[in-house]
Amino acid sequence: MRLCLIAFAFVLGNMTFLHAQSGRKPLTTPAGTPILTASGEPVYELSSTATIPYTNVAQLDSVFMQKSYGDAAKRIIAHALKDSIAYSRLQYMCYTFGSRLSGSQNLERAIDWLLQTMKTDGHENVRGEDVKVPAWVRGEESCVMVSPRPYTIPMLGLGGSIATPAGGITAEVMVVRDFAELTRRAAEAKGKIVLFNAPFTRYGATVRYRSEGAIRAAEVGAVASLIRSVASYSMRTPHTGGMRYQDSIPKIPHAAIATEDADLIAHLTERGEKVKVRLTMSAQTMPDAVSRNVIAELKGREKPEEIVVMGGHIDSWDVGTGALDDAGGCYATWKALQILKELGLRPRRTIRLALWTNEENGLRGGVDYAERHKNEKHILAFESDGGIFTPQGFGFTGAPELLKVYTAAGTLLHPIQSAALKVGGGGADISPLVAYSVPQMNIEVENSKYFWFHHTQADMPDKIDPLDLNKCAAAIAVMMYVAADLP
Amino acid sequence: MRLCLIAFAFVLGNMTFLHAQSGRKPLTTPAGTPILTASGEPVYELSSTATIPYTNVAQLDSVFMQKSYGDAAKRIIAHALKDSIAYSRLQYMCYTFGSRLSGSQNLERAIDWLLQTMKTDGHENVRGEDVKVPAWVRGEESCVMVSPRPYTIPMLGLGGSIATPAGGITAEVMVVRDFAELTRRAAEAKGKIVLFNAPFTRYGATVRYRSEGAIRAAEVGAVASLIRSVASYSMRTPHTGGMRYQDSIPKIPHAAIATEDADLIAHLTERGEKVKVRLTMSAQTMPDAVSRNVIAELKGREKPEEIVVMGGHIDSWDVGTGALDDAGGCYATWKALQILKELGLRPRRTIRLALWTNEENGLRGGVDYAERHKNEKHILAFESDGGIFTPQGFGFTGAPELLKVYTAAGTLLHPIQSAALKVGGGGADISPLVAYSVPQMNIEVENSKYFWFHHTQADMPDKIDPLDLNKCAAAIAVMMYVAADLP
Repeated sequence: MRLCLIAFAFVLGNMTFLHAQSGRKPLTTPAGTPILTASGEPVYELSSTATIPYTNVAQLDSVFMQKSYGDAAKRIIAHALKDSIAYSRLQYMCYTFGSRLSGSQNLERAIDWLLQTMKTDGHENVRGEDVKVPAWVRGEESCVMVSPRPYTIPMLGLGGSIATPAGGITAEVMVVRDFAELTRRAAEAKGKIVLFNAPFTRYGATVRYRSEGAIRAAEVGAVASLIRSVASYSMRTPHTGGMRYQDSIPKIPHAAIATEDADLIAHLTERGEKVKVRLTMSAQTMPDAVSRNVIAELKGREKPEEIVVMGGHIDSWDVGTGALDDAGGCYATWKALQILKELGLRPRRTIRLALWTNEENGLRGGVDYAERHKNEKHILAFESDGGIFTPQGFGFTGAPELLKVYTAAGTLLHPIQSAALKVGGGGADISPLVAYSVPQMNIEVENSKYFWFHHTQADMPDKIDPLDLNKCAAAIAVMMYVAADLP
Repeated sequence: MRLCLIAFAFVLGNMTFLHAQSGRKPLTTPAGTPILTASGEPVYELSSTATIPYTNVAQLDSVFMQKSYGDAAKRIIAHALKDSIAYSRLQYMCYTFGSRLSGSQNLERAIDWLLQTMKTDGHENVRGEDVKVPAWVRGEESCVMVSPRPYTIPMLGLGGSIATPAGGITAEVMVVRDFAELTRRAAEAKGKIVLFNAPFTRYGATVRYRSEGAIRAAEVGAVASLIRSVASYSMRTPHTGGMRYQDSIPKIPHAAIATEDADLIAHLTERGEKVKVRLTMSAQTMPDAVSRNVIAELKGREKPEEIVVMGGHIDSWDVGTGALDDAGGCYATWKALQILKELGLRPRRTIRLALWTNEENGLRGGVDYAERHKNEKHILAFESDGGIFTPQGFGFTGAPELLKVYTAAGTLLHPIQSAALKVGGGGADISPLVAYSVPQMNIEVENSKYFWFHHTQADMPDKIDPLDLNKCAAAIAVMMYVAADLP
């Protein structure tokens, strides 16, 4: 019986599409403990079916891998580590075009340049696939404490937020630690600016105040809402990110302040001071713009119609230069393709590089990709969108037989300590492919600092170690090559 | 023969006064290697004389210390660790009054509150001593790359800088790594904005670009100057700090940008792009204002006219809340005084707490203190101005006999791993007392992160661990008590 469970995990980034999956049952261990992804999100069971693309699966063990792919893996790893072109390209793109928010000129210029360089490099089927994307523009914004003393508070409006009226909104701040406290003290919220001062636990939990804060605050009559940034460390660093409204509930402006300033306001209110702030935002949502998913391929030599798709997302928030989120994922996968091409390692099946657009505030790139390519046979979808740090292995969601096969393939990565395969993997942009039963994989990295930089002005190229980028590329190249080449 | 060398070390902070010492000979080891302070500055020999305030100095060894002060030290340490009042006060001051730049209302309000609380606490001779201080006001400021693409660059004007004309200065950026490169390429500098992109090595070396950059750039015809922030780590964090002009050389605006943006501009110029920025600053130097050194005492029971002075500086830059620089030093020494008072440990000599004003941009508090109290007999001057982290011991500059005595006293601090005494200690505010041959001491801390936060918006109370603050207070209280009480 070929019917198997494809578990599905959502990771960092936009949650909108992913919530659509949540009618499904979260997977648990035999003891009933939930199986979680690296970011702490539940791994869901899917009711869909998948076929195993390989023959004689039981024999695809580590001995087989070493015999069949040991030499290729060694060549890939050596080749990956011998120059820093991936980092140079990442730097060039980040420094030259800057942040790459959907709808911006920066993004489209970066895409033009990417397409051009990939054509010049001689990649196959290089093309942009048009995608309509939202165009949210931050504009001028500020947050100032006006009482008990004047004090400028660094802030970032949250993506998708409405503006304040032109003169801003000046109101007393009501500080709550969580939604439960807001519910308990709902009677006090009317006319106030609610500050959700939720300490960072794990991204998947704390991000709810960013995603839903404006809805929950407006429900009880607040005129605006602020969050303590979703950050595991802060140097007075606000973190932006996506948020949403609900049609039945009034829309109010929603912004993030640094953890230090949330502490300050909480301290003042706890001792009985009345804290008033003036929040001024001029954000606008413009008509949808046209962006592109960036595609390049290494055509399969035997079954070109079977596809391993791998990539990252080319868009970013409009702060910093989106180096870790997710230029790193783009250049790790680009470099993986480049290595295979340069070494003449053409696998049986096609490896397709896809650099998705609009992951951050719409996921329209990932949705368009799944819809446009739904009649193709994807045997694996891979995304790198958890930052580029030292690689450790892979997360995988799919049939247990495949997990065994890829675990065996992972042993080829012992030389760069990236052999571990864990249950539960995926990425926002590949999650729409779950609907077509495509197994999901991501790279796992030493990401303890990821939420220092995520969606901040500090997400700049210096935060990536070129060696880590090369190691990630090596790990991805080996795994994708094997996945695409297995008999 | 009582003639001895008083070595002198300058540490973090304002360098103006200290440069006046530099006619003196730097101390070296017998092998000719320069003796340096923790921040890498030379330790200077002084030609002045000092008397040893204690009798039978040779007998003041660790056995003596343990016998005479072992119990007191244990009580002090236990008492220091039993509450978090020092941290609560620091938080209260930082959050309530904010940053405390000389000439600001914030600073004087904080001083009013400090004087009031210290009176309420029942300290002796609590008073403010008026000091005229400079009043530099930052005003609005910005730095924008206008070419090759629009890009906002976080920046901080440097303290004392002049403003730009109202519309800003727009000019091409010339990037140099050091003064030598500027000299080599002097012919190119005319009409440009020079960016000193000097990587951080040690504070004392790299800070020269902040202090002298405007002079050196103006000398070769630049219209403004920027520095790569003096920072050992950055999350897009500009660092402000003092700078100076030279009368014979035109004054030009001088500002700091984050290391990430210095990298970006350097990257663009290295590949031949012409980078233009518009620097806009409206800084003003107002007439001098009146501030105060904050004084409190624990009168000596036998020789009240002999004084151990200890403290930190109460002013800060106008960013963040000056929690590490130097509210921490103020509250570590305040808490030391408080502990001795609460335990009824009244030493033979007077311990005086002095919280100096205007360390950051004038050193007028330290200079006024030395002048006003020059006829008093100071046997030791202590400052904490290197951040509050885990204490490790003390730096000391003075007679070798005294170094031996204080090294013996340090053994009382083994329970909190703060026993080490090193040659070369001091602090900017106590450096004027060198002219009166007063031995100099500072606390040494695990300061590897100090230049992450120094003079930035990130210098907020959360950067201090309350336990470290208590441990520093314990170490200071023990050392000051012994120094003031020895026979």
